[in-house]
Amino acid sequence: MLNFNYSIPTKIFFGKNKIDVLAEQIKNCGSKVLLVYGGGSIKKIGLYDKIIDIFNKNEISFWELSGVEPNPRITSVRKGIEICRTNKIELILAVGGGSTIDCAKVIGAGYYYDGDAWDIVLDSSKINKVLPIASILTLSATGSEMDAGAVITNLETNGKLATGHKDMAPKFSILDPTYTFTVPKNQTAAGTADIMSHIFEVYFSNTKEAYLQNRMAEALLKTCINYGRKAIDEPENYEARANLMWTSSLAINGLLSYGKETEWSVHAMEHELSAFYDITHGVGLAILTPHWMEYALNDNTVNNFVEYGVNVWGIDPNGDKYEIAHSAIKKTREFFVSLGIPSSLREVGIGEEKLEKMAKQATSRGKLGKFKPLDAPDVLNIYKAAL
Amino acid sequence: MLNFNYSIPTKIFFGKNKIDVLAEQIKNCGSKVLLVYGGGSIKKIGLYDKIIDIFNKNEISFWELSGVEPNPRITSVRKGIEICRTNKIELILAVGGGSTIDCAKVIGAGYYYDGDAWDIVLDSSKINKVLPIASILTLSATGSEMDAGAVITNLETNGKLATGHKDMAPKFSILDPTYTFTVPKNQTAAGTADIMSHIFEVYFSNTKEAYLQNRMAEALLKTCINYGRKAIDEPENYEARANLMWTSSLAINGLLSYGKETEWSVHAMEHELSAFYDITHGVGLAILTPHWMEYALNDNTVNNFVEYGVNVWGIDPNGDKYEIAHSAIKKTREFFVSLGIPSSLREVGIGEEKLEKMAKQATSRGKLGKFKPLDAPDVLNIYKAAL
Repeated sequence: MLNFNYSIPTKIFFGKNKIDVLAEQIKNCGSKVLLVYGGGSIKKIGLYDKIIDIFNKNEISFWELSGVEPNPRITSVRKGIEICRTNKIELILAVGGGSTIDCAKVIGAGYYYDGDAWDIVLDSSKINKVLPIASILTLSATGSEMDAGAVITNLETNGKLATGHKDMAPKFSILDPTYTFTVPKNQTAAGTADIMSHIFEVYFSNTKEAYLQNRMAEALLKTCINYGRKAIDEPENYEARANLMWTSSLAINGLLSYGKETEWSVHAMEHELSAFYDITHGVGLAILTPHWMEYALNDNTVNNFVEYGVNVWGIDPNGDKYEIAHSAIKKTREFFVSLGIPSSLREVGIGEEKLEKMAKQATSRGKLGKFKPLDAPDVLNIYKAAL
Repeated sequence: MLNFNYSIPTKIFFGKNKIDVLAEQIKNCGSKVLLVYGGGSIKKIGLYDKIIDIFNKNEISFWELSGVEPNPRITSVRKGIEICRTNKIELILAVGGGSTIDCAKVIGAGYYYDGDAWDIVLDSSKINKVLPIASILTLSATGSEMDAGAVITNLETNGKLATGHKDMAPKFSILDPTYTFTVPKNQTAAGTADIMSHIFEVYFSNTKEAYLQNRMAEALLKTCINYGRKAIDEPENYEARANLMWTSSLAINGLLSYGKETEWSVHAMEHELSAFYDITHGVGLAILTPHWMEYALNDNTVNNFVEYGVNVWGIDPNGDKYEIAHSAIKKTREFFVSLGIPSSLREVGIGEEKLEKMAKQATSRGKLGKFKPLDAPDVLNIYKAAL
């Protein structure tokens, strides 16, 4: 096990009606709030009205930034910073999924940064201080509600990059699974694929002696497999929604990655797909993952895939190693298909044209991963296999 | 899944030489420290000298409370409070296992309490404020390094009771697995049993829909089973010591219990054994656990034991339910025996004499548990079965 420093300071209020803590928790930070949200689904489910009512009853002043995009853009971040500065905002409350929360985080960091906000996306070391962030989660997927990272897109440069700072972790997040009852089937599916991808990125690793972390990763994968389809078939199944929601947070808050070398190469490859084609992140991950697995499978890594197949998919351990590995990868692909997710790039409108450019950009910061290091030609091979 | 509020604020510095952060972390709280430790094993391994050296080099003033007992006594707590008040201590640093850390926690709480410290053990609601606590862990067992509870013994009343307050959670804990290399075989065994018991107390529950938590609990149990014997046979096996150490913290910091109804009846029964006979806590737990399991097994609970047997012990799921359950319990008992732990009360010097008195005292705050509620006659039956 590698050395690590563990700090997960975000408070989570989990369950039905937990929004009751909102006013009290906000007041720990101040009473001037920027409310950040996306396309208006929070209005449809009555959550927006509920929040405004709480604000009004508790003398909390608020300003709004709405229309944050599914792949949140730097232009929205800039708008948010402007509102915060003009109105001396004390806390940014993101209500939505990961995109909304990511946007809020970078607004919070940009508030204290003198230059243009894209600088702190390109180079997180320029972040020194962050306005307090909080979230009310309405989509189980990115884990942004409990981690310190954010991914922002710059359409001018086709850039989609991750940044982060410890103070970008929300002070608190409210996780009420009933807010995800109305999430459409395709987004539930993509969210589940996103959660699973976060787990894969830290599960497949050169660190062999992180037994505990690996067994926990398998616990989370089994939860996604057990409830992914159920949440699609029965959108108001509280048990399914609750398990997926809590899994989304634990998948990426550090619990599974502390003490391990981590990978994150599928995410880096997918970010190019979303940046160039604006596709749904979880869909891109689900398409690429089985192909990455096949590409990463070799004599050095086969035991990891056997462990995955046996412990997660219940494959008989007494077969040929490579057969077990291939079977585990096949089951992974079949699971994503069973959720109704497309299984090829062409199905989501991506052809060969930009693959080479995307492969170069995906590796512009250097090789991806260490479990199976990927350079631009490797990434191109994986993109092509996924066509 | 039940509603819950998650907050685990303790920072963990995990790994070799992590003591390097000590001075910096202390200085976040002040520079006047009470150093709390037990019988002197920290001197044998050179840890005491190392700490004193860090104190001296960093102008940290310190006072000492040594000789804290394996079942820490209220008399030690009172001594510690006295030292803290006289010297205006700003942080209490416990160096040792759970007993030492528990003692430090109640000293910290007692510092701000006007009456006798036993009052705040009897009634945790009397705790309002706590001096900052920190720990350097030298024994993987209680999880006190990352939770907010403490157990204190009063020999005058044969009382051994748990208390707690959110601010009793350490500000930081240093977990260097090499500090456990010299832990004797019997204490390694008892520590492993203690960790497993913490997991059992929250794993066996009436809450059926906490799938994620149950799979994580199994992950931790498998880690104990995989490394318990190894750490005994190869005391300097870093991988084994590291996995057990991190498991000890995660077993009881809330991760497994959030969202569930929990049990804690074996702990309550064992506390009487330690209070009356001063036996090692983990040994008492290992002796009682299989008997509690057999007693708790019935038509309402059999599925939980089947899940345990299949997922943790790899028992074929296609057999008779009760056979699987009994087999799982048998494997549990055999595992504890394989660690060299006695399997009956008589072996640790406990006869029939006080069983009835202990059973009454164990249930003096009401029935134990909800998965299988136990009144005094039930507890007596379990004690007798364990003779």
